Amino acid sequence: MDYYSSQISRLIEQLSGLPGIGAKSAQRLAFHILNMPEENVEKLGNAMIEARRNIHYCKECLTLTDEEICPICRNEQRDHSVIMVVENSRDLAAYEKTGKFDGVYHVLHGAISPMLGIGPGDIRLKELIHRLEGNVSEVIIATNSSLEGETTAMYISKLVKPTGIKVTRIASGVPVGGDLEYIDEVTLLRALEGRVEL
Amino acid sequence: MDYYSSQISRLIEQLSGLPGIGAKSAQRLAFHILNMPEENVEKLGNAMIEARRNIHYCKECLTLTDEEICPICRNEQRDHSVIMVVENSRDLAAYEKTGKFDGVYHVLHGAISPMLGIGPGDIRLKELIHRLEGNVSEVIIATNSSLEGETTAMYISKLVKPTGIKVTRIASGVPVGGDLEYIDEVTLLRALEGRVEL
Repeated sequence: MDYYSSQISRLIEQLSGLPGIGAKSAQRLAFHILNMPEENVEKLGNAMIEARRNIHYCKECLTLTDEEICPICRNEQRDHSVIMVVENSRDLAAYEKTGKFDGVYHVLHGAISPMLGIGPGDIRLKELIHRLEGNVSEVIIATNSSLEGETTAMYISKLVKPTGIKVTRIASGVPVGGDLEYIDEVTLLRALEGRVEL
Repeated sequence: MDYYSSQISRLIEQLSGLPGIGAKSAQRLAFHILNMPEENVEKLGNAMIEARRNIHYCKECLTLTDEEICPICRNEQRDHSVIMVVENSRDLAAYEKTGKFDGVYHVLHGAISPMLGIGPGDIRLKELIHRLEGNVSEVIIATNSSLEGETTAMYISKLVKPTGIKVTRIASGVPVGGDLEYIDEVTLLRALEGRVEL
């Protein structure tokens, strides 16, 4: 790419490493960025760098946050005895958007997948078990309704049942094979309301 | 978006300002970035900031570059008497990728568009006229074959002709590999008018 000067080439190369951004989009994005006011480019670049630098897992629920305890776990208005287990922070956000769940979350950061060699020890299950020692009345399993999500749900229900804590699974109003973050709020709510005890 | 901590929200907001990136993609991109190694995020963010900070127009052809004179204009192997006029740096790159043009370029940074209120004074025509005072044998007009591109081509040809310098326009017609039945009528007519003897 010697028809671009080195810094433009480097920018295009960096951008094309992002998911869903091919060579053409990277080029288009790069030129858009080069035409933006310098101040805005600095805001964008620094938002990335700073967010990444300060991000870590919430001490309670393990969602990505830049604080020690995330805003949801810090909120005393919420019911801390009801824990919804999700695969990742995007799925948490999807349920938060419904505005109808007032419990707290537990983020697994993955799902059990024998195919990909991801076992129970590779996701944040130990931390979930540890939380069950506190005052917990219900564990709602909201993993995706994919093969991995279902496997994970079964595994968790078997782990939780001996403790006597109620375990539920969000209803299959969620289309099979669907990814939570792309599902509309009404369907998400229907799935929550229709949850059944495992 | 109080279900994300402030820095994540800010990152998503910044990303969704980019072209072709909606709310969902911005969220997906943000979480991808938060899961990237910190070092790579710094490379990406700084590539943006530095490219934007150091970018300006090449003194000769006005393409975007981080050097005083771009690599193409600096190249003495190229024929500096043949100038291809393009609308923007991406179009320049498109022709460079063919590897078959060994002249130099002139980047207009736009096209004349009465609809959008962009007149001849709003694109880099003055600089082109100035370059014609040097040793120029041909001006190839490679603006897009849109209404704006054609208007601009007509305008430039009228400007250049009195100088006696040869002015040409890239051919328009059926794209190579194109299927006639999917090509619009205007293009088909243009291809017919521009037919060449075999």
